[in-house]
Amino acid sequence: MALRVGVIGGGQLARMMIAPAVELGLDLRVLAEEDGMSAGLAATAVGDYRDLEAVRAFVADVDVVTFDHEHVPQEVLRALVADGVVVHPGPDALQFAQDKLVMRARLAELGVPQPDWAPVRSIDELQAFLDEHGGAGVVKTPRGGYDGKGVRVVRAAGEAEDWMDALDHGDALLVEELVPFVRELAQQVARRPSGEIVAYPVVETVQRDGVCAEVIAPAPAAGERLTAVARGIGESIAEGLGVTGMLAVELFETDDERILVNELAMRPHNSGHWSQDGAVTGQFEQHLRAVADLPLGSTAARAPWSVMVNILGGPAEGTLGDRFAAAMAEHPQAKIHTYGKAPRPGRKVGHVNVADEDLDDAVYVARAVAAHFD
Amino acid sequence: MALRVGVIGGGQLARMMIAPAVELGLDLRVLAEEDGMSAGLAATAVGDYRDLEAVRAFVADVDVVTFDHEHVPQEVLRALVADGVVVHPGPDALQFAQDKLVMRARLAELGVPQPDWAPVRSIDELQAFLDEHGGAGVVKTPRGGYDGKGVRVVRAAGEAEDWMDALDHGDALLVEELVPFVRELAQQVARRPSGEIVAYPVVETVQRDGVCAEVIAPAPAAGERLTAVARGIGESIAEGLGVTGMLAVELFETDDERILVNELAMRPHNSGHWSQDGAVTGQFEQHLRAVADLPLGSTAARAPWSVMVNILGGPAEGTLGDRFAAAMAEHPQAKIHTYGKAPRPGRKVGHVNVADEDLDDAVYVARAVAAHFD
Repeated sequence: MALRVGVIGGGQLARMMIAPAVELGLDLRVLAEEDGMSAGLAATAVGDYRDLEAVRAFVADVDVVTFDHEHVPQEVLRALVADGVVVHPGPDALQFAQDKLVMRARLAELGVPQPDWAPVRSIDELQAFLDEHGGAGVVKTPRGGYDGKGVRVVRAAGEAEDWMDALDHGDALLVEELVPFVRELAQQVARRPSGEIVAYPVVETVQRDGVCAEVIAPAPAAGERLTAVARGIGESIAEGLGVTGMLAVELFETDDERILVNELAMRPHNSGHWSQDGAVTGQFEQHLRAVADLPLGSTAARAPWSVMVNILGGPAEGTLGDRFAAAMAEHPQAKIHTYGKAPRPGRKVGHVNVADEDLDDAVYVARAVAAHFD
Repeated sequence: MALRVGVIGGGQLARMMIAPAVELGLDLRVLAEEDGMSAGLAATAVGDYRDLEAVRAFVADVDVVTFDHEHVPQEVLRALVADGVVVHPGPDALQFAQDKLVMRARLAELGVPQPDWAPVRSIDELQAFLDEHGGAGVVKTPRGGYDGKGVRVVRAAGEAEDWMDALDHGDALLVEELVPFVRELAQQVARRPSGEIVAYPVVETVQRDGVCAEVIAPAPAAGERLTAVARGIGESIAEGLGVTGMLAVELFETDDERILVNELAMRPHNSGHWSQDGAVTGQFEQHLRAVADLPLGSTAARAPWSVMVNILGGPAEGTLGDRFAAAMAEHPQAKIHTYGKAPRPGRKVGHVNVADEDLDDAVYVARAVAAHFD
């Protein structure tokens, strides 16, 4: 009987596991938040991932549990593990992706380079940190943020007063120095329960409004040193935090050639979508191999350059189908991936991957496809 | 709403349409012959494809109908078309893939190069053909054959007596000259209802016991002339027969450099599995684009060489899962595709694709993976 992999969450990341699961012969089963979600084809249950009994009912028929997102509460995860359920990544690892203060403290213990940071419990503490760091900082709510939500650049402590007022007694906000970065990078690694680990080429990510907009693989002008440093950071974190499955490490590259860890994600990540068409083993296949404890696949690039551009559903004329067809007609080499979502301005409804010998050509085509949806 | 593509037949070809359908955002629905088939994940109905009412019930909820195999009877297909159902390829095209005598007659009209052939209704007629062609020939039942079934090399007419006796009154067997070929090739093209057509590189196929065993893409030492001739034959047939979707043309290359048509298939075909990992647009994606009347994708190769080797479930020790894992561990660059079938000696349970700069390396790795299952 095929190994049954249960995915909690029915978004586009779960959807993009369907294709490699079919080819690998894994029986993918999804717990979706509601009917009609992106991963609906593989949904075997609908329920609330915060409801232990709903999750227990779902996992009764699977051999290993993994995730579309990192929001399943620790108490639910730990109850599953106590039940004997195999969970990858497990709660001990996932806590570092769920709480940015816990993550910062652990990375400090591991000696991984990161921005200066502090937990702050009052406006005075926050102002003191800003005063020590050039008068500016990045304030983050430790839990629940994504795609730029829960992140605010401040130049006076009062700008975070609403978040401070909303804190429960004893809780803290995270403040980080405002890193003078020249660009953002991402390093992905995959790790099996047995400890086998593989690293993807380091990539450059371009964010717009806190959301990943474009990715170039590999990162242009990434020499041997940068590549090795980024890879070493990814591997150290995967091993130090006990990650199983895909890990994405978002990085800042500074003007003095330092690499600092910005954020972590313990699942397939937008910065790795290029690998679906640009690497021998795409990140969704690799995640499934890792959580199913199968041997990991080659991460080698399949072309000199791969470019990913997110497709945001905008106010363009015509149906989404018409726009896809127009983009496909103009760019037969483009690999368009759709998420099965209704378009809304700014909503990610898909992405396009283009692999090419020439970086400029790849960027041109990928942007031209995405522009059909603006 | 997503376009609903209905596939009649639940085998591995339907299964391998699932992955590209998800990425393209098509709603794939399969009429499977029984529960638990290869394409079970996308099965929305179980029924007999020869039963018009079962097929009618299935197609009521789809926008376009296509096929996992060519066995749906003409009367069922023509009833669907009369109902107003969109069917690709349609019955006018499919008849040429369903009856080899009808196919030979039509290719003769089109002037496509093919072996000498004749319909034979008696042992005497067959013996006369053999006498005129060096004393040997290939006898075929015009309908229902696949993977070498319904094909017999004879050196005396009496060797086909059982088939001759089983003929209905007025029917004929097909006999073809025994072509002194040096190798077998396959040419694939895709054609949209609008007439847009694209061709894949011509490939070399290696058959064992009448079953496709290995494919090398492109065919080694295929110069410009051979490539152009094969492509021209594929395009002429697709246009002349009004094919929509993927067409595979199996070819003989003779020692006097002629290219002769052996067989046709109007669906994704074993000779095109390499394209899943070796071409910008795999044949399953291309078939879906064509039957959904979407713009066709690039057929460019993604590596200098791609090799496909079929995985036959044999008497090897251990479960299929254990053997896949062992093969994956040794060959991280191999792309293994599984069909979700129980292993049996000689049964196709999957295939492996390997792309490489070096043909010998690709052949070595692909065969080594398949050997884990012998």
